[in-house]
Amino acid sequence: MLKTLSRRLSSSAAKPQQLAQRLISSFELPEQTGAPLSVAKLAIEKTTTPKEKLAPEKLVFGHTFTDHMLQVPWSASEGWLEPKIVPYQNLSLDPATCVFHYAFECFEGMKAYRDNHGKIRMFRPDKNMERMKKTAARICLPTFDSDELTKLIAKLVELDSEWIPSNRGYSLYLRPTMIGTQASLGVNPPSSALLYVIMSPVGPYYPTGFKAVRLEATDYAIRAWPGGVGDKKLGANYAPGILPQRMAASRGFQQNLWLFGEEGYVTEVGTMNAFFVFKNGDKKELVTAPIDGTILEGVTRDSILALARERFDPAEWDISERKFTMKEVADRAKAGTLLEAFGSGTAAVVSPIKEINWHGEAVNVPLQEGKESGVVAETMANWIAEIQYGEKEHPWSYVIE
Amino acid sequence: MLKTLSRRLSSSAAKPQQLAQRLISSFELPEQTGAPLSVAKLAIEKTTTPKEKLAPEKLVFGHTFTDHMLQVPWSASEGWLEPKIVPYQNLSLDPATCVFHYAFECFEGMKAYRDNHGKIRMFRPDKNMERMKKTAARICLPTFDSDELTKLIAKLVELDSEWIPSNRGYSLYLRPTMIGTQASLGVNPPSSALLYVIMSPVGPYYPTGFKAVRLEATDYAIRAWPGGVGDKKLGANYAPGILPQRMAASRGFQQNLWLFGEEGYVTEVGTMNAFFVFKNGDKKELVTAPIDGTILEGVTRDSILALARERFDPAEWDISERKFTMKEVADRAKAGTLLEAFGSGTAAVVSPIKEINWHGEAVNVPLQEGKESGVVAETMANWIAEIQYGEKEHPWSYVIE
Repeated sequence: MLKTLSRRLSSSAAKPQQLAQRLISSFELPEQTGAPLSVAKLAIEKTTTPKEKLAPEKLVFGHTFTDHMLQVPWSASEGWLEPKIVPYQNLSLDPATCVFHYAFECFEGMKAYRDNHGKIRMFRPDKNMERMKKTAARICLPTFDSDELTKLIAKLVELDSEWIPSNRGYSLYLRPTMIGTQASLGVNPPSSALLYVIMSPVGPYYPTGFKAVRLEATDYAIRAWPGGVGDKKLGANYAPGILPQRMAASRGFQQNLWLFGEEGYVTEVGTMNAFFVFKNGDKKELVTAPIDGTILEGVTRDSILALARERFDPAEWDISERKFTMKEVADRAKAGTLLEAFGSGTAAVVSPIKEINWHGEAVNVPLQEGKESGVVAETMANWIAEIQYGEKEHPWSYVIE
Repeated sequence: MLKTLSRRLSSSAAKPQQLAQRLISSFELPEQTGAPLSVAKLAIEKTTTPKEKLAPEKLVFGHTFTDHMLQVPWSASEGWLEPKIVPYQNLSLDPATCVFHYAFECFEGMKAYRDNHGKIRMFRPDKNMERMKKTAARICLPTFDSDELTKLIAKLVELDSEWIPSNRGYSLYLRPTMIGTQASLGVNPPSSALLYVIMSPVGPYYPTGFKAVRLEATDYAIRAWPGGVGDKKLGANYAPGILPQRMAASRGFQQNLWLFGEEGYVTEVGTMNAFFVFKNGDKKELVTAPIDGTILEGVTRDSILALARERFDPAEWDISERKFTMKEVADRAKAGTLLEAFGSGTAAVVSPIKEINWHGEAVNVPLQEGKESGVVAETMANWIAEIQYGEKEHPWSYVIE
C-alpha cells in the first residue's frame, strides 16, 4: 500500500481537490477489530418517570426530547459494546475528553413520520447511515454496519412512538451523534467513542405556509474548500458559520449564501444545499452545485435531483449538477432568466428564496403570484411529503412496523 | 454600522482573504451585557481526597491531571457567574448540548514552570489570553478580561503547585477550555457556556536530547483556507488533521507539513508553526509563513521572531515573515542553501526537522554534526527555556510567587 500511495502522491498534474477525493476515499483505514455493532445485543431500560408531552403547537425545533436515548460505547480494543436504550440523561465526561478539545464529533439529521394508518416511517435512513460512516472515518471515529444502526434507531423510535404527533407536517427529528471519549490531551485518533441517538418531536417548518427568505451572498468567510471537510457532517463545519450568520442577520438577512473563490461560485445556503431554476431559450434548467468536496451531500438534495430526473419532462427540463457563479445568477435576474431559487435540507425540506444581497445590491428572485414559493420548490415539497407520510408508496420510505 | 459594512462589502477588488481579515476583525460584536469575569468572586472548594502523584519520569503528555480545576459558567442573560476552583471532576451535560454537535469549543495551551528559587512562572500568558478571546469571539462564545482570567489561572496553579515537578525540563501544562453548553439543536450562538481550566504535569519533550523528525509534505488535504478559521485555536481545526497524520505515519513520517494551494506554500507542521533557515549569499534568513489567516498565531512563533530580531546580528541575518513554497525548500536543499528547519509550539518549544518527503522524494535538511538539531533551533530552545525557568529575568515571565 505504501508504494501505491507514494505513486499516487507523486503522479499527476491533477488538481489538489481531485487528488484529495481520490486519496482520502481510497485510503484503506486499518481494519476495525473487535465486536461489530449489533442490534441483537440491545438492552432496554425503560424510564420510570415519563415526561409530560408539550402541546404540538408549542414545539420549538430541537428543544424538547423524548423519554429515551440510545447509547453504544466503542473502544479500539473491544470494538462496539452492548447497545443500550436508557432514559434520556446527561452524559458524564472527564473535562479532558477529546470531544471538548479537538472536535471529535459528527452527527446526522433525519426524521420519522406517522402516516395516516398510524404506521411510522423513516425517510431514506440508508443515506444518512452511509454519510455518517464516511464522516466518522474522516476523523478516525469508528464505522459500523448501517443496517444494524438503522434497526437500533427503529427500536428507539418504536419505544418512544407516542412522541410523534399525528398531525400532518409534524415529525420526530432523529439526531444520531458520535463523539470521541478518550480523556487525554494528545492529538491522536480517539481510542474510545460513544455513539448516541436522541429524538425531538418537531412541528412543521412553515406552520402557515411558505415564507421565502432573504440571503446575503457571503464571500469574506469561506465555509468549505477543496481538500477540506466541508462535505462531511462534522461539528467542525458548524460553529464557524455562526458569526457570518449573525452578521447577515444584523443587516436583515436570514441566511448566508456561501460563495467560493474569486469566481464567486455558489455552494450552499446556511446549512442547506442550494437549487436554482434558470430559463435557457425554450428549456428550463434545475441547477445545483456538484459534489466536489465543498458541499454537503444532502439527502434532500439527492431526492430532489432524483425526482426531477424521474418526473420532469426531459423535453422541457435539464437537470444539472454544475458549477455556477453568483454573477450568473445576478445576470440572469436582470435578463429575466432566473425563475426560482430555494434551499433544501432535512429540517425544512425546501426553503424558498426571494432575494439575495450581493455586494450591497439586491438580486430579486421571482415567486409565484400571491405565494411565498416558486413552483418547483412547492412541487418538490409536496412530492417528498407524500413519500414521507406514506401517501405514496416508495422505496425511500422505511416502515418501522 | 450597516452602511459601513455594506460599503466594505461592495468596495474593492481586494482579495477575499484580505477582506475576510478586515471584516471579521472589524465586526463589532454586540456588547456583552451581564457581569464581567472577576477573580474577586472566586470560591475555592478543596479536594478531600488528593490523588497520588506519578513519578515524574512516568508522565505522559496530557494523561495525568492535578487535584483541582477552575470552572466559570456564563449565560447570555447574566454574564460571567461565580468562578469556582473545585476538585477535578467530570462534566455532566445534556446529550443535546451544542458542544457535542456544532463544535462550539476553543482552547489554549500554556505552561507554568518552577524556577531554581522555587518560584512559579507562566510564560507570556497575556498572549494566550488575547488569542483565546479572538478565537472565542469568532464562534460567538463570550470574551472576558484577560487579566482576570490570568489571575484566576494563577490561583489554580498556586493551589496545585505541588504538582509541578522541580526538575529542569518539567512543567505544568495548562489547558484553558471554553465550550458552548446550550442544550438545544438549533444552529445558533450559544446562550450559555462554560470556561474551565485543567492542568497536567508534563515531562521534557526530549528527555534524552533532541530527536529530529521526518515530515510528509501534504497537499491532498488542506488544513486551512483564507476566509476560514485556521488561525484560531478552535477544536474544529484539529480532528480533520488526524487522518492525514495517520496516513503519513503509515508511511513512516511523524507529522504532516501542510502545504497550501497549487503553488505549494509552506504553512505549518502538524500542530506547530514552521521555521526554515536559508542561505542567501553572505547572509542567512530565518523564514516563517506570514500571519495571513491560514496559520495559527503561535506564541512560540512570536517569541522566536522577537528573540531573533533582538539578538541576531542584522548584518548577518534577515528575519522574514513571508510566503515560500515547498519548491523553494527543495531547490535550496539541492543547491546547499537550506541550512535548517524546525517546528515551534508550546509542547516541544522547538522540534527539529531532518527530512521532508515531497511527492515521494526525500528533501534532506542538515543537522549539526553529531546532533539531532540545527544551531538556530538549539539556540532558541535554550533562550526560551532560560526565560521560562527564570534563569534570565525577562518581561515575558509572569511570576506567580
